[in-house]
Amino acid sequence: MLRIWTLYAVLSTLNAENALEYHHNPRIILTEKDMPFRRHSRNGTHARSELVQGQHNDSIYVGGHRMLSYVDFQTPSQSKEVSMFENKCRDQEPTDSCEYDITILHKISGGKEVFVCGTNGILPVCCHVPQSQLGSCGSFSAEGIAPFSVEEKAPSLYIEDELYTTANLYIRGDGVGIHRHYGTKGKISSRANKTEQRVVAMAISGPRADPVQDRIYTFFVERNLDRHPEAAHWVSQVMQVCKADRGGTKNILDRHWTSLLTARLYCGIPEKALHFNRLLDVDVLHAANWTDSKVYALFTTGWGMRAVCIYTMGAIDHVFMTSRFKHKAEPAPIQPRMCVENSKNLPPEVLRQMKDYQEMKDLIRPVNASSPFMVSYRHYRHIRVDTVMGRDHVRHTVLFLSLESGKVHKVLEQAGPTFIIAELQPFRSRTHIQNMLLQTSTKKMYVSSSSEVVELDLRSCVKYGQRCEDCVQARDPYCGWDGTKCTAASRDTVQDVKHGNYMVCEEEGRTDKYVASRHVHSLPPTAKYVLQCPIVSGHAHYSWHHPGGQTDCLLAEGLCLMLIEKMAPELEGNYSCVFSEGGYQRTLVQYELQTESRARGLDSSLLAPGILLLCLILLD
Amino acid sequence: MLRIWTLYAVLSTLNAENALEYHHNPRIILTEKDMPFRRHSRNGTHARSELVQGQHNDSIYVGGHRMLSYVDFQTPSQSKEVSMFENKCRDQEPTDSCEYDITILHKISGGKEVFVCGTNGILPVCCHVPQSQLGSCGSFSAEGIAPFSVEEKAPSLYIEDELYTTANLYIRGDGVGIHRHYGTKGKISSRANKTEQRVVAMAISGPRADPVQDRIYTFFVERNLDRHPEAAHWVSQVMQVCKADRGGTKNILDRHWTSLLTARLYCGIPEKALHFNRLLDVDVLHAANWTDSKVYALFTTGWGMRAVCIYTMGAIDHVFMTSRFKHKAEPAPIQPRMCVENSKNLPPEVLRQMKDYQEMKDLIRPVNASSPFMVSYRHYRHIRVDTVMGRDHVRHTVLFLSLESGKVHKVLEQAGPTFIIAELQPFRSRTHIQNMLLQTSTKKMYVSSSSEVVELDLRSCVKYGQRCEDCVQARDPYCGWDGTKCTAASRDTVQDVKHGNYMVCEEEGRTDKYVASRHVHSLPPTAKYVLQCPIVSGHAHYSWHHPGGQTDCLLAEGLCLMLIEKMAPELEGNYSCVFSEGGYQRTLVQYELQTESRARGLDSSLLAPGILLLCLILLD
Repeated sequence: MLRIWTLYAVLSTLNAENALEYHHNPRIILTEKDMPFRRHSRNGTHARSELVQGQHNDSIYVGGHRMLSYVDFQTPSQSKEVSMFENKCRDQEPTDSCEYDITILHKISGGKEVFVCGTNGILPVCCHVPQSQLGSCGSFSAEGIAPFSVEEKAPSLYIEDELYTTANLYIRGDGVGIHRHYGTKGKISSRANKTEQRVVAMAISGPRADPVQDRIYTFFVERNLDRHPEAAHWVSQVMQVCKADRGGTKNILDRHWTSLLTARLYCGIPEKALHFNRLLDVDVLHAANWTDSKVYALFTTGWGMRAVCIYTMGAIDHVFMTSRFKHKAEPAPIQPRMCVENSKNLPPEVLRQMKDYQEMKDLIRPVNASSPFMVSYRHYRHIRVDTVMGRDHVRHTVLFLSLESGKVHKVLEQAGPTFIIAELQPFRSRTHIQNMLLQTSTKKMYVSSSSEVVELDLRSCVKYGQRCEDCVQARDPYCGWDGTKCTAASRDTVQDVKHGNYMVCEEEGRTDKYVASRHVHSLPPTAKYVLQCPIVSGHAHYSWHHPGGQTDCLLAEGLCLMLIEKMAPELEGNYSCVFSEGGYQRTLVQYELQTESRARGLDSSLLAPGILLLCLILLD
Repeated sequence: MLRIWTLYAVLSTLNAENALEYHHNPRIILTEKDMPFRRHSRNGTHARSELVQGQHNDSIYVGGHRMLSYVDFQTPSQSKEVSMFENKCRDQEPTDSCEYDITILHKISGGKEVFVCGTNGILPVCCHVPQSQLGSCGSFSAEGIAPFSVEEKAPSLYIEDELYTTANLYIRGDGVGIHRHYGTKGKISSRANKTEQRVVAMAISGPRADPVQDRIYTFFVERNLDRHPEAAHWVSQVMQVCKADRGGTKNILDRHWTSLLTARLYCGIPEKALHFNRLLDVDVLHAANWTDSKVYALFTTGWGMRAVCIYTMGAIDHVFMTSRFKHKAEPAPIQPRMCVENSKNLPPEVLRQMKDYQEMKDLIRPVNASSPFMVSYRHYRHIRVDTVMGRDHVRHTVLFLSLESGKVHKVLEQAGPTFIIAELQPFRSRTHIQNMLLQTSTKKMYVSSSSEVVELDLRSCVKYGQRCEDCVQARDPYCGWDGTKCTAASRDTVQDVKHGNYMVCEEEGRTDKYVASRHVHSLPPTAKYVLQCPIVSGHAHYSWHHPGGQTDCLLAEGLCLMLIEKMAPELEGNYSCVFSEGGYQRTLVQYELQTESRARGLDSSLLAPGILLLCLILLD
């Protein structure tokens, strides 16, 4: 009841349809009892965890407190762990801590090396670790590359031989920006920035036909300078720089970006004045054509609500290419919106303008401008996105959203109401998820807490049920019915992700008349009794059909019950628990209740010889 | 589980403490099974209901569609119903509807008359109905007094011989304002207003030592003219006029208010940028000293959240007396903030200023500036406030909040977390509450739906329990323990509203050692069984103490269950359901479970004669 209530309260204002509770509850909950989780427990406890894919399937690198680990979930014997930057202690004041936390982790030169940075809170350092001999590395000071503070999240990108970082330049902060290191085009930075910013993610916009036009996008939140009483405290923005940028001339923008532009990332329902202002996490789904690449962004509000908005790279690019500048009067600016081969040749007046005007007037709006893809009251923290090729040659997109309690929601991207396929519970107790890594080639997901890394097999389908109908109704693009079980989807498996229409089973001749198991129970007269029925789907409706008519379930923590207060002759008969979901109805369990007649109480097998014996005595 | 979840999501952002679910759930739910509701079913269905107190206790006047009813709940035979304004049909075009809906209802001249207005959607009319002969009345056209539209809510005040109304002046709307009719000081109006406004309530600020200084406050919401992208669509305001106002001179403000000022009514949590912008309902608690009178205001937001903010008349007055004007440069305005005996004598420049500047710069802030009195995700619609004198000579304030589903929450005003004493369910099915009337002298509340008016006795206490401790823990200021039962609070009853500390019972020697009833149950071996325990408080914790240890309840719709999957010898013994709330713990029910030995199955009383009979036959 309260479920309905609450959503009614929170969401009816957003969208009448969404007010239906089940759009915000998972259809099924999967714990380690239901699907295989492979675990790796980390030595010690870690303030953060950096994750990158390893060189083999089902293997990853994990950076944490003092340690860099290579974890192989297939052959755990292969796993190893090395302490990082210990050697730094030698050339340091004895007072300084030589316990470094890893803050940046990249696989480079085609996986042959791992690039690792860390900090002891005083001085950041980095080094290149050859994958062959983990551990040995000549570390060097990394001021301006990696963060000073262990707490600071500083997303970075390593593309070819170029490293793009977003760490604070100064130990005091207020120096967040985007900086390029290495490569032939030299080191370039943004100018110091006085407003508080927190970078959420980086991505490349491309690759494009002309590489000169490739851009780097940085997604960040910034303290809102708007002093309006109703203005939100944070606003979300995208910053672009051209990958080809070589900086300005000696006098103007020397060694600073000449292509840096920012635009506001909008997510909300304008007509209702509901805005999601604060960006939490971003994941990018790259497409063959870069303009179709999609940015999935998770936002929150002061009310604690969450929303996911989806943007195309094309739409973001369009704003940077066409929008007027926010604080600049017409006529249209002379800044070039195209990236240039060599920015040092740009005329001074252009450079001067690039120095003064950077913010776009137009907002970047989501694909479905009318409203976010998804709105929820749940405290989601991370977002990852994967695609699965359906048998019908349709690509299905699945979102993975981490919850603050340590759970993960597997959400189907579809038009209309949100459909949460499942809630995965990788951890045994409530914990905080620090990071998520998706290995799309193997369809594995890695989630890390301060003490554990757990591997989720996104294709574990058995739990959906033992029948084609169960498997199809689950609507999980990773799964299909192979004739005998619900298993990883392939060309030969039956599935209907779009509608979950179980009829496809019959069409494919994959179904068989189902009869629910039936239990007979004899109860003492006037006995109190309880009937149980399993909850196979959180989206289904359950009811008991019995001689007295029809009764809804008494729902209690994952059980559908029916209480028999006092057994009586008129209550004898069949009790079946009927489940219905999406027009699909079937009986899950059946009971036949009988009343023990008092006579039945007499055990004749005992009685007969007893009487004979007794009589023989009497006859004597 | 989900309860915790949702509140965690919605409210943890507001206040960590409030995230505890029970602050938003009633301690107990009372239906007609639990307390006496007296009902009056209205003839036909009504779009609205106007309620005023009748001349006797437990009697009210109800205005609806075509009908004015006098309802006497004590002696229903006294109730009568008359159709209003039927006679109007004669002097109307035959095309016009002569079905009038009552829109304004007041008891005047000391209760001897009822002032009634209604509309047929074309022309509003009013008339004075002598209480002695209900029905007979000479109606007159009421343009500018009562609304044209049946939908329009137009609060009004009838003070002494003056009527203050807020109806639209024109059938097209956009004429909302405050208008005075009758009385010696003549008719005065506000000037036509182009922005959309909806009046929520009216109240008098006074009576003051000097009657000239009495003011009328009008509480309303207005379309926000602020075009800021983040600005809310509605803002809440208070409008003041001096009761003594006689309007301006021929040239300036002729027959218009010369004392009309407006100020913004603020409710929210500024430091979190959480604002409740839209006023829904208001009730005023008048105090001996007018400055201490309190305004209880119910607000909502685009997110569907609700908040109750409390203001003192003194605070509102202070803003109107001292604030600068919003759109006016310094130096300080020359407008007089005091009401004047005869506004017609005001100098022209003053009148001119009063014409141009009306809006205050300062916001009116609630008593506890830091945050609203109460924040909830529940869809409250109406608010009424009552006070009860406690035995300890402390006045306790109780709020009544209607829910959209037709329920009413009884809420205790206290510092710290919200405490919902009870949820009252006056209606048999989900319905929309149209209006609420509190009869504080008799402690009765009247709630009306389109088809019913129900009387709630706010002092029905029996359901709280059969023990002093139950009664005290309920913390209901209307109730107390008289030594034998929980009943209407008096000088002689035991209660502790502030802490609900049951120890007062012992101190007063009103308690007796309590032993929970104990049931013995013999179960067949391996039988399945279920134990039940009643839920006496939604705020308490329940657990089962048994031979195997301690188990939390399996909570299912108002029941606390314990399932015995399979009876076994080791499960024999005592099972007690222990309830704890506010440090108070006790056993509610006890069961003793035994296993029937098969032998007991043989009924010896049947057996003996059977054997004898058998043997006699054999002996033959």
